[in-house]
This record gives sequence, structure tokens and C-alpha cells, in this order.
Amino acid sequence: MKKFYIAKSKRLRSTPYTSRIEKQGVTSYSIYNHMLLPASFGDTLEDSYQHLKNHVQVWDVASERQVEISGKDSAKLVQLMTCRDLSKSKDRRCYYCPIIDDKGRMINDPIVLRLNMEKWWLSIADSDVILFAKGLAIGYNFDVEIIEPHVDIIAVQGPKSFALMEKIFEKKIIELKFFGFDYFDFKGTKHLIAQSGWSKQGGYEIYVENITSGLELYDHLFEVGKEFNVKPGCPHLIERVESGLLSYGNDFDNNDNPFECGFDKYIDLDSDVKFLGKEKLKKIKSEGITKRLMGVLINAKKISVSRSINLTDENNNIIGELRSGVYSPHFKKVAGIAMIKKPYWKVSQPIQIEINKKSFNGTVCELPFL
Amino acid sequence: MKKFYIAKSKRLRSTPYTSRIEKQGVTSYSIYNHMLLPASFGDTLEDSYQHLKNHVQVWDVASERQVEISGKDSAKLVQLMTCRDLSKSKDRRCYYCPIIDDKGRMINDPIVLRLNMEKWWLSIADSDVILFAKGLAIGYNFDVEIIEPHVDIIAVQGPKSFALMEKIFEKKIIELKFFGFDYFDFKGTKHLIAQSGWSKQGGYEIYVENITSGLELYDHLFEVGKEFNVKPGCPHLIERVESGLLSYGNDFDNNDNPFECGFDKYIDLDSDVKFLGKEKLKKIKSEGITKRLMGVLINAKKISVSRSINLTDENNNIIGELRSGVYSPHFKKVAGIAMIKKPYWKVSQPIQIEINKKSFNGTVCELPFL
Repeated sequence: MKKFYIAKSKRLRSTPYTSRIEKQGVTSYSIYNHMLLPASFGDTLEDSYQHLKNHVQVWDVASERQVEISGKDSAKLVQLMTCRDLSKSKDRRCYYCPIIDDKGRMINDPIVLRLNMEKWWLSIADSDVILFAKGLAIGYNFDVEIIEPHVDIIAVQGPKSFALMEKIFEKKIIELKFFGFDYFDFKGTKHLIAQSGWSKQGGYEIYVENITSGLELYDHLFEVGKEFNVKPGCPHLIERVESGLLSYGNDFDNNDNPFECGFDKYIDLDSDVKFLGKEKLKKIKSEGITKRLMGVLINAKKISVSRSINLTDENNNIIGELRSGVYSPHFKKVAGIAMIKKPYWKVSQPIQIEINKKSFNGTVCELPFL
Repeated sequence: MKKFYIAKSKRLRSTPYTSRIEKQGVTSYSIYNHMLLPASFGDTLEDSYQHLKNHVQVWDVASERQVEISGKDSAKLVQLMTCRDLSKSKDRRCYYCPIIDDKGRMINDPIVLRLNMEKWWLSIADSDVILFAKGLAIGYNFDVEIIEPHVDIIAVQGPKSFALMEKIFEKKIIELKFFGFDYFDFKGTKHLIAQSGWSKQGGYEIYVENITSGLELYDHLFEVGKEFNVKPGCPHLIERVESGLLSYGNDFDNNDNPFECGFDKYIDLDSDVKFLGKEKLKKIKSEGITKRLMGVLINAKKISVSRSINLTDENNNIIGELRSGVYSPHFKKVAGIAMIKKPYWKVSQPIQIEINKKSFNGTVCELPFL
């Protein structure tokens, strides 16, 4: 696979931590919300995977931008954008929420943080949700303020993240529940910290608003983390595919509805809340979907997915398309996330795929893999 | 300057021409509208600049995505989003239009193509205008359809682009006026072609809807173009800075209003048309702006601008910030685009800037440079 450089410019925004991760040996970037997202640090993909699963990593995920919606109508606007019923939501809790349009199709899948009933953060995937929210607020004449606040997240992920964070923030941080958040003091500055993160290895996300303190905290995490074998890292392709953590733009986009993405438990059609696309989703539910995201295991040692790749059955019928994929050390074959057409949903459905002009076989399975 | 790789994934969309430009030697990419935008082809920045100014280049600018707004209320919605009066616009014409929000701040600066009164394309810069349009259409309950159509632009730029295009599309294409567009036949397939492009060297943009024909046309341009010394290329930093072609995300963003960007001639406050932020812009106009985009010339041989760099006066007061900059072969010094504070707008205002920990001096000037 030929490699290409990234042409840096102000438009591909740096983060407050960029100069640090470049000193720490970052070798490649993705772009996420118009911002640099580190993608590798020179070690092999498998080494960083093993490290993440066994130790602790600090990630510069400032590119997980926030859309702050505040004001009298903020709860109404946030609810309008998601099919998840937030009427019983609580302050200081995180909610994974599909954002959908009036056609019932996916626009984003943020973590929604309810700071209070009149102030919400949407910690977004890679699309300009702020423009959707602004358009709606203007059109509906809502009494809200919508901004992208200065928040640059540091994620601390991996099984040893709890011990590391306890050293810095003491016992109170261990008591934080999954998807809960609270404010924690670091040398006199309060930081919003959630027990969350884009891995299934456990950990925290620190929503840094005070950059000076955040940079000091970043350095402190590496200092204190030495005994836990801390390393810089980033959201990890192998880990996230094995864990079935879906990625907007990769695994699904505005051509897919939340049922097709398997988000059924975040779709509340029976409650009274008002949200966009509700009638559409009712119709889709009653008619049934004809494609859905599933896992695939492929008897291959290597893959690079930079666009959808067709999956076929033994008779060469297209049965779906692979959208993400990577060699899995756990399965010792390629694991992938694919949109599969209805007649082929059965687990163990055989598939064929062409990788670098060679044909490989495999099978369909449910998500998550692990 | 250390270089970093781009981590490819489906989310950073390939274009129909990606495999071709990779064979042709593309070495780096930017990301624009969630899509690969080629940024260099292995030759030096100055060589490709000289080539663009003297010959003809073919660019894969599929990342200039279209937002298609059609239906009964489409003209109303398009007008609502821009401060430029489109009431006297004509079919088959392109219009450069600042898109602004209700605060009168920039959201994008597309070329708007009026296909007809009920079908418009916004050929956008790097932000998800489609989400803003959708939000507005839903909130105002407009009768419109909004999609991202399958359009992948090939640009043909440079002084010899006219001769090359005439060889393929005959005399009719030479008669096309600047910012006019029409439909031209290539081997039985009609293509929308505009006299436009993201350089000041002249040329065309081919809005390819039929990919098969587009790929054949792409190859044909290189075949026929041999006698004109055609090369693959891309929007060029030196050329666009010298020409004062502004870039959303680099030179301005949602923190700036169109007056600050120098878009005065595209702001129609006296006509009757209804658009967002109109009252705000009237207020801004009457109160006057306090910063605006200007050029700077710096006595340095090299610069790399991946974030804003402060500009100071001789007393170390911050007088503005550099947002784009590059060594200009024409001026034999660095030319840049900077947001300058009001007291320092005078041409020849001296500036100081720190580049790689060394101090350089220069002066303020008007845009465009050439």
C-alpha cells in the first residue's frame, strides 16, 4: 500500500496537544471535524493494540468537538435531533444518541452530555452538527445559543487507566459510573471528566476547557503514568472493529437509518417526545429494513479499506459491502464491519471478497465480535 | 518541517479519479468536505506553480462537493442563506456567494450555480452546508429537496486550458463567458462545464455526473493535452495566495463576517431580498469593522502555516494574525493573508513575525497581490 503525506494547513486545525504528540513520535494523522486526529505512533498496529488492551494510553482526541446548545429551548432542540428519548435524562450523565434528519437518516452519533437542563454538549463524530443545529434553531425560532466551545478532550484509555487516574484525582474518580461525569480538581483547575471513551478497554475522557491546565495535566499523565507503562495512543482500528464500535463516515452515513445501524435500543418510537423523522422511523419499523450492519470474518491476513468493497456469495451475487476491516490478532484473520442485504443475514453466511485482485472467503457474524 | 502520513479510511472519501492520480504520482493529500484533495505531485511547489502559470493542468477537485437544492421553495432557501442578491440571477450562470448565519458570520463561500429557478447547486468550500440547508428547510417547512448529488468535478486550469478544451469541445466552449456554464457533449454524454476554477490562470470546471464518461474524459484530457504540456495538478498555494483567492477554514471562518473578509461587493443590504443576518450586517456596516483581511509581505524565504501566527508591530503589540502564507517566487519573499486589526490597516504598516523561533519583518498590503 503506497503511503501519502498529509498537506498541513490552518484549515486542518491543530490541537493544543499537537506539538506534544509530534515530539512523542506521531507518524500519521486522520482528519476529524476539520482537525488533526493522530492515527499511529510508529509502533505496529498490533503492538499498540496489545498495549491498549493491557496497559494505559493517553489520546489527543480534541477532534471530538463539542456543540454547545444552551438556553431556554435547548432541551427541546437536542431532543428534536435525536430519536433517543431524553425526557428522563439526568444532569452529569452521558447519552449515546443517534442524530437523524427528517428522513430518519443518520447525521451523526454523538455522546450527549447534559450539563444541566439548559446547557448540553454534543460530543460529535465527523460531521458539522453545529450547522444542522443552527439551521433548525433559526427555522424554528428557538431561544438557544449554539457555539463550538473551546473544549479539547484528552482520553485516558486501557485497563490501567483507572489506577492512573486515581493517582491524580484520588478515590472519587473511581466512584464515577460508566457514562457519568463530574468535575475534578487538578492543581486548582476544575476539569469535566467522564467515564467514557472510544474503546471498550475502559477509561476516561477529560473535557479540557483551560488549555494551560490541560497541557500541564497532559504532561502529568505521562509523568505519573510511567509506573503503568503509559504511552501516547489514539482510537484504534483493531480494537474498535473487534469491539463493534461503529464509526460515522466509515460504517454508516446519511444513506443509512438507525435501524440499519443496529441502534434499535436508542430509538424510542412509543414515547411522546417530538423528534425529526419519527413518523419515517415508524414506517421503516413496520415495513422492516432490507440491509443492516453485521460483522464479517475473512480468511485473509491483510486488508486496507479506503472505500466500500463488495461482498458476494458463491454465485457472485452482491450480498453487501465491507465498510471497515483490519487484521484481527484475536481471530487471526480479517475482521470487518459490513452492510449486509436482507436475504443474507444468517450467521455463517459464506462470503467472497476481492482484496488486491485476489479472492478470499469468509463468513457473516453478529456484532460485536468480542 | 517533519512530514506525516495520512491514515486513509472510507470516511476520508476517495474520488473516482483517485486511482488515476495515484498512478500519476500524487504525493500528498489534504481533506476537503470529507474527501481526498490532492496537494502535490512530487515536483517542487515552485515548478508546479510555473507550470500552472504557463501551461495547463487537470485537477481532481471532486472534493468541491455540490449541495443540490430543488423544489418550489429552492430559490427562497438559497437566497435566505446568502447576503448576495440573487433576485436578478440567470439560469446557467455561476455566482460567488458568501453563506452566512443569523449572526452575519461566514459559514461557507460557494459558487452557486442556477441550473433553473427550481434547481440550484452550491459548489461548496470545506463545511457541511448541506446540514445547514436541511436544518433551515425543516425549520421553515420549505418545499425543497436537498441532496449531495453524484458530481465529481474535474478542473482544467492554466492559460492553455482554452486551447485544450477547444480541441475536445470545439469552438462553442471558447464562447462560454466567465462564470457561465452550459452542457457539452463528450462522445455522446452531456457534461455541465463552467468557465471557472480555483485559480486566476483561466480555465474550466467539468461537473461530471456520469462517472464512466468522466473517467474517459479525464484520460482523454491527458491524451489530447500532450501537445500543451498538460500535467496533473491541484489548487496551488502560491498561485491562490498571490491571486488573493481566499480559503474558508484557512483565511476566514465562522468567527468572521463577510465585511471583514472583503466581500463587500457580494453584500446587498439595500435590496428587498430576505436573508439571514441582514439586520446584523446593517449594524456591522454602520458601526464599522475592527479587523479585515489584508496581504502581508515578509522578508523571509520559507514559511509553513499550520495555525495562525501572530503579527506584531515594532513595539510588540499584536496587530493581527497570519492565516495563510507561502514563499512567492514573484516577490522573492513570503506572501501571506492576514487578519489585521483596524489601527494597522495602512499599506506599508511594518510587521514583525516569528517563524521557527526567528524574527522576520515585513509590511502590510492590499489584496490581491497580483
